[in-house]
Amino acid sequence: MLYEIEASDWLNADEPLSLASLRGKVVVVCVFQMLCPGCVQLSLPQAKQVHQVFDQKDLVLIGMHSVFEHHEVMTPQALRVFASEYRLAFPIAIDKPQAGSPLPVTMEKWALKGTPSLMVFGRGGELALQHFGHLDDLRLGALLGTLVGS
Amino acid sequence: MLYEIEASDWLNADEPLSLASLRGKVVVVCVFQMLCPGCVQLSLPQAKQVHQVFDQKDLVLIGMHSVFEHHEVMTPQALRVFASEYRLAFPIAIDKPQAGSPLPVTMEKWALKGTPSLMVFGRGGELALQHFGHLDDLRLGALLGTLVGS
Amino acid sequence: MLYEIEASDWLNADEPLSLASLRGKVVVVCVFQMLCPGCVQLSLPQAKQVHQVFDQKDLVLIGMHSVFEHHEVMTPQALRVFASEYRLAFPIAIDKPQAGSPLPVTMEKWALKGTPSLMVFGRGGELALQHFGHLDDLRLGALLGTLVGS
Amino acid sequence: MLYEIEASDWLNADEPLSLASLRGKVVVVCVFQMLCPGCVQLSLPQAKQVHQVFDQKDLVLIGMHSVFEHHEVMTPQALRVFASEYRLAFPIAIDKPQAGSPLPVTMEKWALKGTPSLMVFGRGGELALQHFGHLDDLRLGALLGTLVGS
Repeated sequence: MLYEIEASDWLNADEPLSLASLRGKVVVVCVFQMLCPGCVQLSLPQAKQVHQVFDQKDLVLIGMHSVFEHHEVMTPQALRVFASEYRLAFPIAIDKPQAGSPLPVTMEKWALKGTPSLMVFGRGGELALQHFGHLDDLRLGALLGTLVGS
Repeated sequence: MLYEIEASDWLNADEPLSLASLRGKVVVVCVFQMLCPGCVQLSLPQAKQVHQVFDQKDLVLIGMHSVFEHHEVMTPQALRVFASEYRLAFPIAIDKPQAGSPLPVTMEKWALKGTPSLMVFGRGGELALQHFGHLDDLRLGALLGTLVGS
Repeated sequence: MLYEIEASDWLNADEPLSLASLRGKVVVVCVFQMLCPGCVQLSLPQAKQVHQVFDQKDLVLIGMHSVFEHHEVMTPQALRVFASEYRLAFPIAIDKPQAGSPLPVTMEKWALKGTPSLMVFGRGGELALQHFGHLDDLRLGALLGTLVGS
Repeated sequence: MLYEIEASDWLNADEPLSLASLRGKVVVVCVFQMLCPGCVQLSLPQAKQVHQVFDQKDLVLIGMHSVFEHHEVMTPQALRVFASEYRLAFPIAIDKPQAGSPLPVTMEKWALKGTPSLMVFGRGGELALQHFGHLDDLRLGALLGTLVGS
């Protein structure tokens, strides 16, 4: 399977990013919803730290806002306010909504079970981790260190 | 000064509450905005615990959503989703918006400086505390114990 | 029952304290052992805050080192180092050891089940709380506020 | 410089360990004192997790009790009680005391500045990190992942 992010828009990015164009780097995608408590309390603080700790020559952290419920209030406009208030400085993809389904396109293609979810891709673009829920810092750090170092 | 909550609507309440009708009980008002990180991380979890720990014969905890910025995304509809996702079970007043000012009515009358803010009223309705920012559990507990016991 | 602390020695006190001489004030006794993880992680930090927050005209916080196991290493000498390293500034009673029993005198008389334990006495010296394990800050604060205010 | 642990005794080990005999594995040495608050609150919980998370075919976590003050109370006997109460299951070296100096042998040879300290060695035995104070889980995980994976 060839993984790609299908986004209707991006925050904190001069232009759209793609997994294809990031080949050669490790890529971490933190999938969240702005009104998901576990995302706010655990995953987004971790995403901020990953973004700060690793050199962007080696690793890129991307947030992906995959709204699968309450679409009427978790809008792009609301997300921009949320990202500003929580000082999220990393690139954030808005997972593309699709007519006739509550699930956005990328979430459905990747068969994600909910939020938070974590997707990690190695330098060659291969999927190294698909994790539903929170993963502790030590285990995530170890995985990223292995992928960056190899 | 006679303090009263002016609300455009209420969540988790069969009918509108008023400070006047709660005379005889201690009342704690946790003033928040749903996209304020300090509110989400500290004040609302504390409000949940106050609501659980004290007997409602003695003390009533009220949340007040006082939106003074980003009104377009912190709507009543969004607040309902937020309260559901964060499992807020206590009564929540929506502070009444006013034309021509970003400040809602109660926030302006009470001269609140921002969110989170804490207002505590004694059994006689007198203001016992007006605090901007978070107050630790031990100090808040001590104040509430004194007011409930007196 | 008349409660009194029977101590073989005191730290951070110019002279021995007694519950009798503290009549008129609320007294909180935090019973601990220096090598008890729950005491170190939860109860002693709470005791430090109680000591800081309340006015000593109203409330006195006392630590009591009640060693009921591993007496050979939790010695008075070791306790002094521990209190210094953890910056415990409140008075600490060393519960009096007794020949022929692992339990020190006060612990046995008060029928304490282990450490951490919390004993709270009202201004008249009456027992207001005997609690085995940790009690959260909000509940403890509420009790102390009630006792101090009455 | 050739690093080696000089221990007067070991806990949780059938026989003395040596860095030389662990060549081929990553080795993490968590240097602590049992009455050092930063060690108890941060470094030892982290050491427990490192011990649990990594496969011992790849990585070995060793605690080293390097007593440089209050030797009279941080004795081997006290350390055994401490390790039991805090449920430390990983091997612990007692850094060898030396006559005429407060510093134990390994601490002096390695020029450690205090506790907690972290020493990490790669599979070839080379020093990969010498850190005084606490290092967060994400950074430590990343380093260990890189070393294990290489």
